Amino acid sequence: MKNDFAQRTGVIYPIIQAPMLGVSTPEMAAAVSNEGGLGSLAIGGLSPERSQTLIRQTKNLTGKPFAVNLFTHTIPPYEESKMVPMRRLLLEMAKERGYALAESELQNFRFYTYKEQIDVLIKEDIKLISFTFGMLDDATIQLFKSNGCTLIGTATSLKEARLLQESGIDMIVAQGLEAGGHRGSFLDDEPLPQVGLFSLLPQLAKQVHVPVIAAGGIRDAQTMRAAFDLGAAAVQVGTLFIASKESDAIPAWQQQLSGVDATDILLTRAFSGRWARGIRNEMMERIEASGIPIPPYPIQNSLTAAFRKLAQQANDSSYTNLWAGQSAGDAPADNTRDIFRFLVKELKG
Amino acid sequence: MKNDFAQRTGVIYPIIQAPMLGVSTPEMAAAVSNEGGLGSLAIGGLSPERSQTLIRQTKNLTGKPFAVNLFTHTIPPYEESKMVPMRRLLLEMAKERGYALAESELQNFRFYTYKEQIDVLIKEDIKLISFTFGMLDDATIQLFKSNGCTLIGTATSLKEARLLQESGIDMIVAQGLEAGGHRGSFLDDEPLPQVGLFSLLPQLAKQVHVPVIAAGGIRDAQTMRAAFDLGAAAVQVGTLFIASKESDAIPAWQQQLSGVDATDILLTRAFSGRWARGIRNEMMERIEASGIPIPPYPIQNSLTAAFRKLAQQANDSSYTNLWAGQSAGDAPADNTRDIFRFLVKELKG
Repeated sequence: MKNDFAQRTGVIYPIIQAPMLGVSTPEMAAAVSNEGGLGSLAIGGLSPERSQTLIRQTKNLTGKPFAVNLFTHTIPPYEESKMVPMRRLLLEMAKERGYALAESELQNFRFYTYKEQIDVLIKEDIKLISFTFGMLDDATIQLFKSNGCTLIGTATSLKEARLLQESGIDMIVAQGLEAGGHRGSFLDDEPLPQVGLFSLLPQLAKQVHVPVIAAGGIRDAQTMRAAFDLGAAAVQVGTLFIASKESDAIPAWQQQLSGVDATDILLTRAFSGRWARGIRNEMMERIEASGIPIPPYPIQNSLTAAFRKLAQQANDSSYTNLWAGQSAGDAPADNTRDIFRFLVKELKG
Repeated sequence: MKNDFAQRTGVIYPIIQAPMLGVSTPEMAAAVSNEGGLGSLAIGGLSPERSQTLIRQTKNLTGKPFAVNLFTHTIPPYEESKMVPMRRLLLEMAKERGYALAESELQNFRFYTYKEQIDVLIKEDIKLISFTFGMLDDATIQLFKSNGCTLIGTATSLKEARLLQESGIDMIVAQGLEAGGHRGSFLDDEPLPQVGLFSLLPQLAKQVHVPVIAAGGIRDAQTMRAAFDLGAAAVQVGTLFIASKESDAIPAWQQQLSGVDATDILLTRAFSGRWARGIRNEMMERIEASGIPIPPYPIQNSLTAAFRKLAQQANDSSYTNLWAGQSAGDAPADNTRDIFRFLVKELKG
């Protein structure tokens, strides 16, 4: 299985840098790929133009394989009236906090889907495509495959993994409950996500026939060894790279990763309308405590985006998402290359 | 650490049969201890007389060390008026289902605490005492220690583990979110338990100084190996023994363990007022959907007890708790001895 992963992806080490929209950058992906791992560029929900720019930036930084990550959710009906209470709450909180958030920034959203990014991926000849939040449609799978792509889906349960496998996907990320950021779930994720990596990974490794990649809680020799014991063909590491200098995370977020307790890293729908794991903060708590129904993803994500951007510009960790996995902690270095080299050393040691 | 565990407990293999009140029996505990593992007898909440009877039965079946497991929760104020809506719902459901449940069985409860069991444990000279749902008080710890006891607490977070360690406990069970039955949590378990074994175990193994025992999802060679990689000194196995012939679980429950999907094994407070993981069924869903506030443990546990007993007598899996971990599945044998021998073979293999 391990050889299978390396062979299919063209990398040396079975270690993937997790795609983290808002955190990972062309510089981060390239640094990992240049060291013989698989870097990932996250473009979920971005415009075709922006996607192309990021892909080209990454290509300029590495000649090695890297993966491009898509979001494969559907867009729910866009109902302006249902957004009114949440919009009012956000404007109120922003005002209290001293941010000049305009009501115009909280409406008339333009949502991009992965279908609008297909042309760019084909044009840029991207051979490794990972995705999360759902399935790829059959026509797109056929198109990518005819272009020689390897496709990597994301599952949070055995049911999801089986559906991905049946659709013809080449590899599957088993995303344990421990993982930071958005859950990749597209079935059965209510009322709260449930399956831990220690159960999910061996179930998938035994019951699906494609290579399975472990995600959630992986950060050193012992967690990598445990993941391989449980049947992983490769491991995916996210949180460890958030504090690197190639990360787009704000300094206040990066600092909080050190010393945070797992019981303060919670699943929430507050920021985006989709379950995601991050460090507890005021924005999360106030939105949840408000009792206002949270619009589904990506509506809530767009509703909170302008506010979060203002907070980020002010390095204000109380009013932006602080994604983190349950094994957050000090990183072994301050830059992507050295964090990745640490992982390789741990893997070999 | 492994040697430490064997040395302290006097067993050959670092494998514990999990205490499972309502499932585990003197026969089960003795079968495991006789094979060189650590059997566990669960007596949480039982009367001193019943506790003594079970301990003596176990002693009659094995001369080897076994652990006795206590519940260390406190008893919340008992408010009859607050129980009225739940009592009404239970009586209504029982009537619909055709069970002759009497209102008199749903009141005037007598709750036993671990303090009432101490005399029996000292008199019976029990040397291995495990506990869950909280801390032991200092005086009891001193008493047990002066009697040469080894004490094993249960933690679901690093904070809980640190408190247990500070209180002078000898070993700690790291109970991952994957584990079946009741959560051992005594801090921070709202709104839903969160920490997966893959994060919890290495955090505890690194940050507490006493041996850590892994619980949740352990069932074969690869899961045992992964647990030891993550720093466990021993593993605790529960669900695998539920379907054994020494188990008190009803046949309908035992059958459902085979082929159940992890996404149908949910955390619920419906049966006992305390978070516990079990297979989704009608009683769980109806109590949760009722919107009636669920009284805290052990009140709700006593409220539903008579109903569950009637259902168990009728082998009715829809109206009793079906505790199971997220890695439930076919057991390798139909009796405790052979299930344990399977684990030993996997451990050695």
